[in-house]
Amino acid sequence: MTTPFFAAVGGGHTTEILLTLFIMLAAAKITAEIFERLKQPAVVGEILAGVIIGGSVLGWVAPSEFTNTLAEIGVVFLLFTVGLETKPSAIFKVGKLAAIVAVLGVIVPFVCGYLLMLAWGESNVQALFIGTALVATSIGITARVLSAMGLLDAPTSRIILGAAVIDDILGLLILAIVSSVAAGKIDYVEIITTAALAIGFTAFVALVGAKVLTNLAPTIERLRIGDSFFVFGLVLCLGLSVAAAYIGVAAIIGAFLAGMALAEASEENPKMHRQTSAVTEFLVPFFLVNIGMQLKLDVFRDGSTILLAIILTVVAVATKLVGCGLGAMSLGWRRAGQVGMGMTPRGEVGIVVAQIGLSLAVINDSLYGVVLFMAVATTMIAPPFLKWLFATEDAAKDNIDSDDAGGIVAQGDFCKIG
Amino acid sequence: MTTPFFAAVGGGHTTEILLTLFIMLAAAKITAEIFERLKQPAVVGEILAGVIIGGSVLGWVAPSEFTNTLAEIGVVFLLFTVGLETKPSAIFKVGKLAAIVAVLGVIVPFVCGYLLMLAWGESNVQALFIGTALVATSIGITARVLSAMGLLDAPTSRIILGAAVIDDILGLLILAIVSSVAAGKIDYVEIITTAALAIGFTAFVALVGAKVLTNLAPTIERLRIGDSFFVFGLVLCLGLSVAAAYIGVAAIIGAFLAGMALAEASEENPKMHRQTSAVTEFLVPFFLVNIGMQLKLDVFRDGSTILLAIILTVVAVATKLVGCGLGAMSLGWRRAGQVGMGMTPRGEVGIVVAQIGLSLAVINDSLYGVVLFMAVATTMIAPPFLKWLFATEDAAKDNIDSDDAGGIVAQGDFCKIG
Repeated sequence: MTTPFFAAVGGGHTTEILLTLFIMLAAAKITAEIFERLKQPAVVGEILAGVIIGGSVLGWVAPSEFTNTLAEIGVVFLLFTVGLETKPSAIFKVGKLAAIVAVLGVIVPFVCGYLLMLAWGESNVQALFIGTALVATSIGITARVLSAMGLLDAPTSRIILGAAVIDDILGLLILAIVSSVAAGKIDYVEIITTAALAIGFTAFVALVGAKVLTNLAPTIERLRIGDSFFVFGLVLCLGLSVAAAYIGVAAIIGAFLAGMALAEASEENPKMHRQTSAVTEFLVPFFLVNIGMQLKLDVFRDGSTILLAIILTVVAVATKLVGCGLGAMSLGWRRAGQVGMGMTPRGEVGIVVAQIGLSLAVINDSLYGVVLFMAVATTMIAPPFLKWLFATEDAAKDNIDSDDAGGIVAQGDFCKIG
Repeated sequence: MTTPFFAAVGGGHTTEILLTLFIMLAAAKITAEIFERLKQPAVVGEILAGVIIGGSVLGWVAPSEFTNTLAEIGVVFLLFTVGLETKPSAIFKVGKLAAIVAVLGVIVPFVCGYLLMLAWGESNVQALFIGTALVATSIGITARVLSAMGLLDAPTSRIILGAAVIDDILGLLILAIVSSVAAGKIDYVEIITTAALAIGFTAFVALVGAKVLTNLAPTIERLRIGDSFFVFGLVLCLGLSVAAAYIGVAAIIGAFLAGMALAEASEENPKMHRQTSAVTEFLVPFFLVNIGMQLKLDVFRDGSTILLAIILTVVAVATKLVGCGLGAMSLGWRRAGQVGMGMTPRGEVGIVVAQIGLSLAVINDSLYGVVLFMAVATTMIAPPFLKWLFATEDAAKDNIDSDDAGGIVAQGDFCKIG
């Protein structure tokens, strides 16, 4: 099979890509099935699948530009789907509390992470970077867990989602500042411009977007193309993701806002929700597996690296739990705990910070490994605790789905609506 | 926005990809809407969108490895969805007729294309390549058009799909032979091995696969992961696509067979069909737009190139119409015409042949442009005629959907099942 024909058709680039997709999806779903049977969150199983097929264990699939892109598209659609289930009014209702949770959940981890690294003997710039890596919650992971548990409507979920959006914006601003420091000059104009754009964009889409789209809905329904509302949603999701990225907010925030802006307009259209959810269902495993694939276990041959990774993970969990929990203390201990634990996963955001640090040469391979470990570990630690914190409160829901691995309602199941 | 932070997050690779997705999807759907309003097939509109945003007109998106991959994934899912609607028994019923249609539809275009190019003064190898480019029907385009018209169940549709699968396999074998000739040596062992593998794989999946999966269905339903049947289908689709590609059949044939093998097992599961259809609905526009983007209009500054392109297109249409039509003549004139016109689009298969010819340096840019023109033109010519040939026969169906652009039922509409 060596003719150019087979090079182009048989064993070519596209075949490799299809093989990558096959391995990632099959591995994700096999481990998810095992985790469900062990009554553990499927999300953790899918991340673990990435660790197993990645370079550290089997080496079947290496994280590449392609898998990163696929993962990003996956998390974009995940946030869009979550946004669709999130009415702006529900977020505004918790807006003030979410803002307090977000701000405390940014300050406490940043300061503690910074001080820990200074105490560990790292330089000022390195300490700033590690502090920054602790700042931003992975809204993707939290959203996936809450959605898989059928809890997107819970009051604490609203706070978590609202706070995660705010802390993502704050995190990106801090990253811009720290990157400027690392590059040797702070560009105040750029930072202020970015901040203004980010806040303006978010406020505009959340406030004006929803109203415009609710008025537009009948027109969208009347389009001649098939499934016009679904198609419009896909285009809006991609468009606002790109707009957000160009403005300096993360693409996923744009996708979330696109979904939220459509939440009320699409309320009468369960078919559109089902279709979006199917696309997300297909794409999300690639996001989760790709996170696991980032983990390189070989930097942990050094005992002190292991120690630092564990300490940083403990700090990462504790500071979000304390910071965000304090912010939400008015809701009582249990719900404050739900909020704090919900904000714990760092997932892809921590990894992006570490990658930038590496590209700026302020962080070495070993510190990069430590941040990755923290990002993946916080992501894997949170789901079981979240499940436990919600399950004990939510006994009624458990009874409804008692045959379904402890009340877990798969995300795709809002297909049952129609 | 020049810090590494923005390079990584703001204007980075992933943002570009999201922008590409946005432009391709938005352009596809805007032109599709215009075409629907003009009572023309949306498929043609989406291909035209590719011509417009591609290098020949606006130059917004260039065909790249990424868009080709995306297109391939799109057509893989399209064929999987079509396979899901195609029960093996329905194909076996028309098997003999489909085989006759396929064989005549391979011989007539190949011989006529070869002779035309010799008469035009091209070399023997070039003529062989152009003949080969005329051989294989684009099952993707035909399937999309039939599915958009709600005609996958029509008897002629079964013949077209069966014949397209067979002629794809024959086309790939001829391509392997012609590539060997171009490389200066014919590797008979490889050609026979490929032929045996291709036929064996197709027969095995079609005959054994369906039975195995029908028996497996209750087990798949019992899995704990959400939407287990949908997920299983996705994994099977990707797995058999890869297997087909490695064996030397096109990936899309594997996807089609995966769908067909699941068609009976998934009959009781309309939700799985709806979910798969949503993923396909999202991905297919990228396949169609990418075909249009391949067309480079600037090679047509030369009058004789235009003339050759037009003659080759006429030959491409006439030979499939005559070859396949002759094969199906037992069904009467109109249905023979439907089959012949249904087999006319060359789409991505003709383009693949041209690309291989270019990579082997047997075809120059101008001949490449001619083949691309033929591939895109046959793809755009067929849908309106198909629509007309079916619509005049299918007057009853028209009345049911009379407000819907001449009886067009959008593909996603089998979501109405549930």
